[in-house]
Amino acid sequence: MKRLLLGFLLACLAVSARGQNAEPLASWNEGAAKAAIVSFVKAVSDKKSKNYVPAAERIAVFDNDGTLWSEQPLYFQFVFMLDQVKAAAPKHPEWKDNPAFQALAKQDHEALAKLGHKPVLELMGQANSGMTVGEYDKTIRDWLASARHPKFKRPYTNLVFKPMQELLAYLRANGFKTFIVSGGSVEFMRPWVEKAYGIPPEQVVGSQQEVKFEMRDGKPVLLRGPNFVFMDDGPGKPVGIYRQIGRRPIAAFGNSDGDLQMLQVTAAGEGRRLMLIVHHDDAEREYAYDRQSHVGKLDKAWDEAKAKNWIVVSMKSDWKKIFSFERTGK
Amino acid sequence: MKRLLLGFLLACLAVSARGQNAEPLASWNEGAAKAAIVSFVKAVSDKKSKNYVPAAERIAVFDNDGTLWSEQPLYFQFVFMLDQVKAAAPKHPEWKDNPAFQALAKQDHEALAKLGHKPVLELMGQANSGMTVGEYDKTIRDWLASARHPKFKRPYTNLVFKPMQELLAYLRANGFKTFIVSGGSVEFMRPWVEKAYGIPPEQVVGSQQEVKFEMRDGKPVLLRGPNFVFMDDGPGKPVGIYRQIGRRPIAAFGNSDGDLQMLQVTAAGEGRRLMLIVHHDDAEREYAYDRQSHVGKLDKAWDEAKAKNWIVVSMKSDWKKIFSFERTGK
Repeated sequence: MKRLLLGFLLACLAVSARGQNAEPLASWNEGAAKAAIVSFVKAVSDKKSKNYVPAAERIAVFDNDGTLWSEQPLYFQFVFMLDQVKAAAPKHPEWKDNPAFQALAKQDHEALAKLGHKPVLELMGQANSGMTVGEYDKTIRDWLASARHPKFKRPYTNLVFKPMQELLAYLRANGFKTFIVSGGSVEFMRPWVEKAYGIPPEQVVGSQQEVKFEMRDGKPVLLRGPNFVFMDDGPGKPVGIYRQIGRRPIAAFGNSDGDLQMLQVTAAGEGRRLMLIVHHDDAEREYAYDRQSHVGKLDKAWDEAKAKNWIVVSMKSDWKKIFSFERTGK
Repeated sequence: MKRLLLGFLLACLAVSARGQNAEPLASWNEGAAKAAIVSFVKAVSDKKSKNYVPAAERIAVFDNDGTLWSEQPLYFQFVFMLDQVKAAAPKHPEWKDNPAFQALAKQDHEALAKLGHKPVLELMGQANSGMTVGEYDKTIRDWLASARHPKFKRPYTNLVFKPMQELLAYLRANGFKTFIVSGGSVEFMRPWVEKAYGIPPEQVVGSQQEVKFEMRDGKPVLLRGPNFVFMDDGPGKPVGIYRQIGRRPIAAFGNSDGDLQMLQVTAAGEGRRLMLIVHHDDAEREYAYDRQSHVGKLDKAWDEAKAKNWIVVSMKSDWKKIFSFERTGK
C-alpha cells in the first residue's frame, strides 16, 4: 500500500508538472510559424491522426550556427581558432602562403567567411594535431569560459536562441529525439550543448577530424591527426545523418544554404514533414543578413522554402525574445 | 479528478510491471559473472553509492558478432556477401585476381576468416557501388528474410543470445544507454537490431562505406560508393565510439581480440567499470573456439582479461539458455 501511495503522489506531481508546460513555446509570438509547428507536432504525435508517426521515428535535426545560436560576425568556432592557430604558427612556417592563415592573421572576416568552413578547419586541424582528445577538450572548455562576444560582451554560450531552446524542449516533450547536424566540429559542440539545448554528445553530428588510437605508457589514448575525414556541411549533412542517425528525419531546422540538402532529404520522405528556416532579420536585437552575407548566406534555400511552402521564421516578428538575457520582450 | 485517477491507475500498472522484472537475468546461472554484473549495475545506479554515475553517463557498448549473436562458421555479413558478389561478378572481370573474391567463390571459410573483415568488405563495397541506400537496405532485408544458417536451419536473426538480450534490457531498465560497436557495416545491422536487441539505428556504430548525396530527377538520393571510409574494428572501435558517442563507456562487452581496444578504453576511465568477454565454449549448443579460431579469435584479449580481472563468461556454464528457441535449459 505504501508503494501505491507513493505512486499516487508521483502521479500527482506528473500532472502538475504537465500543467506548468501549458505554454510550451512562450517566447514565440502567435502567428503562422508557431501555428505550423504546433499543428505538425500534434498531427504526428496523436495516435488517432492519419499522420501519426511512432515515437522512435520522430527524429528532428537542427543546424547549430545561426539556427540554435548566433554566427556573426564570424562562426564562433573560427574565433576560437584564431587563438589556436596563433599559438601554433611558430611551428608552421609553411602557413605564411596559406590564404586561410593570412585571413585569420589579419582577422579578415570577409575573406574568412568567403573561404568557408573547409580550409579554416583544415588549418585548425594542423594546429592541434598530436593533441590527445582530452587535451583538446580542455582547450575548448577553457576558451569557452574566458572568451567574450564582441557585440554582446558575453560568453558565446549565452548567445543561444531562447525560442529554439523552447522548441527543442517542446519536441522532446512530444516524444521527439533531437539531434544537432552542424558544419562545425563535434568537439567544439559537445562540451556545452547538453546544458544549452538538452542534446547529449551522442546526438551531435558534425565535421570529423582524424583520430588515432595509441597505447602511451600502457594507457590507451586517442590522438588527433591533421586532416579532416568528414565535412558535415551542405551535401555532407544528409551523409552525416545517414551515417550517424540511420533514419530519415521528419523535421529539419536550418538557416542557410548549407542546410538546403538536409531540408531536401527531410522533405523527400513520406507522410507529414516540417521544414523550417530561421531568417536573421533583426539588426537591433541580433543581426540582419541573408542573400549577400558571407557567413550563413541564405539564398537558394530561401527560394526553395518559398517555392515549397517551408516555414520561414522572422526573428524580428516571430520571436518575443531572442536571448534569455534580454530585459524586455516584444 | 479524472486525471488524478488515471495517474493513480498508471502508477499501479508501473508498480506491477516492476514486479514482473523481479528476475531480470533469468537465463543466467547464479555464479561469479552474474553476480559481478548485478553488483556493478547496483553500484553505479544507486545515488547513495560512492560509485554512482549519473544516468546520462551510463554508456554501455556491445560488440555484435560473437557477443550478441553467433559468428560461426563465418561472419553472417560475409555469407550475405557471397550472393552479392556472385551477382556482381560478371561486371567485374578484374576480381579474378583478388584473393578475397577467390576465397568467396570457393566458399573457402578458412581463407576468408584469415583475410579478416577489410578485403572482403572492400569487395562488397565494389559489388553494390552505385546502389541507392534504399535499394541496398531492401537487398539486406530480403536476404535476412530468406537465408538460413547451415547448422541451425533458421534465419540468422534467430541466432541472437537470449542472456545478452536480457542483459541489454537489464542495463536499460537501470538507466543505461546501450550501443552496438561492431566491425560489421552499419547497414547490415540497422534493419533488425531494434527488434532483436532494443537498440535503435542511431545507437549502432559500425564500419562505414562511402555515401554521396545527389539529386536524381529532382529527388535527393544517397548513392553508395565503392570504398570503405571507416573500419570499426580493433583500434578503430575507440575511434568509432569517440566519433559517434562522444563519451567514454563505463561498460563494454566483447568476445574477441577485435574488441580489445574498446575494452581497454572503457577500463581506462575513472570510477567503477565493467569489462566482460563472452567465451564460446559450448560446442553442443553453439560453437567452441578461442585462441586458434579464424573467426572471432580470442587470444590477447583473453590474456588481458585474466591479468586485469575482467569478467569472462562461459557460455556453457553461465548460460541456462543460449537461444530463445532451445527447448530445454541447463
